[in-house]
Amino acid sequence: MFNASLLKTAFARTARAQLAWQPRTLSTVVEAGLKASALRVTKASSLKPLVPNQDLIFGHTFTDHMLTVEWKVEEGWAAPEIKPYQKLQLDPSAVVFHYSFECFEGMKAYKDKNGKIRLFRPEMNMARFNNSADRIALPQFDGNELLKLIKNYVKTESRWIPSERGYSLYLRPTMIGTQEYLGVNPSNRALLFVIASPVGPYYKTGFKAVSLYATTEYVRAWPNGTGANKVGGNYAIGIKPQLMATKQGYQQNLWLFGEDHQLTEVGTMNCFVLWKDDKGELELVTPPLDGSILPGVTRDSILGLAREWGKFKVSEKSVSMPQIKEAVKQGRMLEMFGAGTACIVSPIKKIGYLNEDLDIPLDPNDPNAQAGPWAKKFNDTIMDIQYGDLPHDWSVLVD
Amino acid sequence: MFNASLLKTAFARTARAQLAWQPRTLSTVVEAGLKASALRVTKASSLKPLVPNQDLIFGHTFTDHMLTVEWKVEEGWAAPEIKPYQKLQLDPSAVVFHYSFECFEGMKAYKDKNGKIRLFRPEMNMARFNNSADRIALPQFDGNELLKLIKNYVKTESRWIPSERGYSLYLRPTMIGTQEYLGVNPSNRALLFVIASPVGPYYKTGFKAVSLYATTEYVRAWPNGTGANKVGGNYAIGIKPQLMATKQGYQQNLWLFGEDHQLTEVGTMNCFVLWKDDKGELELVTPPLDGSILPGVTRDSILGLAREWGKFKVSEKSVSMPQIKEAVKQGRMLEMFGAGTACIVSPIKKIGYLNEDLDIPLDPNDPNAQAGPWAKKFNDTIMDIQYGDLPHDWSVLVD
Repeated sequence: MFNASLLKTAFARTARAQLAWQPRTLSTVVEAGLKASALRVTKASSLKPLVPNQDLIFGHTFTDHMLTVEWKVEEGWAAPEIKPYQKLQLDPSAVVFHYSFECFEGMKAYKDKNGKIRLFRPEMNMARFNNSADRIALPQFDGNELLKLIKNYVKTESRWIPSERGYSLYLRPTMIGTQEYLGVNPSNRALLFVIASPVGPYYKTGFKAVSLYATTEYVRAWPNGTGANKVGGNYAIGIKPQLMATKQGYQQNLWLFGEDHQLTEVGTMNCFVLWKDDKGELELVTPPLDGSILPGVTRDSILGLAREWGKFKVSEKSVSMPQIKEAVKQGRMLEMFGAGTACIVSPIKKIGYLNEDLDIPLDPNDPNAQAGPWAKKFNDTIMDIQYGDLPHDWSVLVD
Repeated sequence: MFNASLLKTAFARTARAQLAWQPRTLSTVVEAGLKASALRVTKASSLKPLVPNQDLIFGHTFTDHMLTVEWKVEEGWAAPEIKPYQKLQLDPSAVVFHYSFECFEGMKAYKDKNGKIRLFRPEMNMARFNNSADRIALPQFDGNELLKLIKNYVKTESRWIPSERGYSLYLRPTMIGTQEYLGVNPSNRALLFVIASPVGPYYKTGFKAVSLYATTEYVRAWPNGTGANKVGGNYAIGIKPQLMATKQGYQQNLWLFGEDHQLTEVGTMNCFVLWKDDKGELELVTPPLDGSILPGVTRDSILGLAREWGKFKVSEKSVSMPQIKEAVKQGRMLEMFGAGTACIVSPIKKIGYLNEDLDIPLDPNDPNAQAGPWAKKFNDTIMDIQYGDLPHDWSVLVD
């Protein structure tokens, strides 16, 4: 069902916010209203016991408070609130339950050796969050203001940030459409919330390389779809491919695209290949941001470091499974790995592709290695920056 | 993030339920647990005032009660409940808010001339609902049991079913994943709920033909995606194309696919073309169920009636915009219309395609007509069946 008057209202709002059909960066976000200075804080009357580091399971433990901001089309953003972590009360007709008006971010707060709190390139999350919201006609916000609020929130939850290297406080900014209406229209109500979960290292006992099943039965994203946005709709549809991979003895799925089976992503991570190209030149390759690849913060950081180091050619271009297979057979493959906020890098040891297993090298000098030397170097360098051990402007102090 | 043990649990469950990777029909749904006989009913202590028919707006008014059933991977389906319409209380980490674990159905309950309640082909909704749930790894249920529960629910809400032709009680069965966990895994908790909204005819004062903007900037669905499933993720992403259409003076968007610009759907409806083919034969065409087209109940009903009538060739095949354009220019186009539960048929009068407006004929014998004769005949026949005026086994009495 389509309601023209509601649509006109939403469109007027959209036009006001100068929402062209292009992605925007932090500096061009103009919708007024989200004001960090209007924050109201209500502390929890009692605090939960902390969970010992060794007992942390990703995404299961939540802190004492949450950050929330309500939005109405006719009023804009309300005063932000930090308040006790609590259930959301939503009408069963709220559009988030029916039409997937939802998008999110994943980022982390770290404690450095001096006990200072750090974020990693948070302005990239703010910009991507706005782009995701725009794609599903949810409201825009001033990323600088949300970042101020998130800094305030992580300070409030400071006791939940583990001070051991590898541990951090995972932050989940989320925006949902909350209009109580069964029509497919832009939502005239939204809720932005941030929750936090203390997490341990992805690899508790060092790296653990994964085997991938190259999925030819399902497709994650398509040109002019939503693959470049962190919208909810991209995720549930990945469960069946994941189950198929597991059923066949692999740990994750490798998404492919097109008749030539181009690599796109690894589960919910970006994908990297380090090989000698067909001219024998050392090259780091990752699929280009063509609209179907998520613009990962870790992806961008790896590309940035690789270009800074200048040790190999760095290419954002498509690479196909037949090319991978040829490189493996010719001994030109050096390393492959996934990259994302949760794990930094995830080394790949095997790919099952069309009834054939391709062995991907890890470390040629160590038969027991669970990561290649470059995967490990990217991982360690990024972690050094995140924990403030290696000075870099990607690490942002919260003070 | 990926949790192998949770996945194994979910996969065992999936295997138990004999979930192959194919769609299933009502008769092969085997997951045990959903039992209509276990229903518990709690009536609202006070009832809302009814809304006069002329004041009804689609999807804005909800009845006094809702039907809910909770599911846990370790216990299966709990006892169903009919209880007062109320807000859902969900943890902000519930997977429905992040990863779009959500699917739904749209169906209607009608009151016939004798005051009896009728449903229209509800077994198709049950089967499709299970297929949608399966696509996003939500649990399966026995469609016959849910149908019994829905019949009980519409009887409970009987006073909300308007007794005027064209009016009905819109039913929205919905299933969401409710696990409180920030990992992308099969949800180990789900909630199935049904809410109801009294609605008026789509066209209060007779048909109103619509103009469409043929969208070349966005794609709705693709091979091996989720276009054939009624999952939430298919909907929010359609808002921007809709806004673009409106901005340019059209009422809805027409989804295209592929380099040859094949027609796929009209907004959230299936799409039909009645033309003389290039051999001069009268032909009704709709895109085939290739995995990217929603298998609409109205679509299937129109195809069934057309085949029964035998007045023209009936084809499920792809048709491209260049073919549409040629047919219009050669005077071979007779009618085009969308089809869906909300409107039955929605006649199309114009398509804006690549900076050119194509005029689609309505009724050649009536310059003021807002529907072609065949669109009107499909609409009226289906409505006759829905309201029990034309006996047909598609109409199911609730008694």
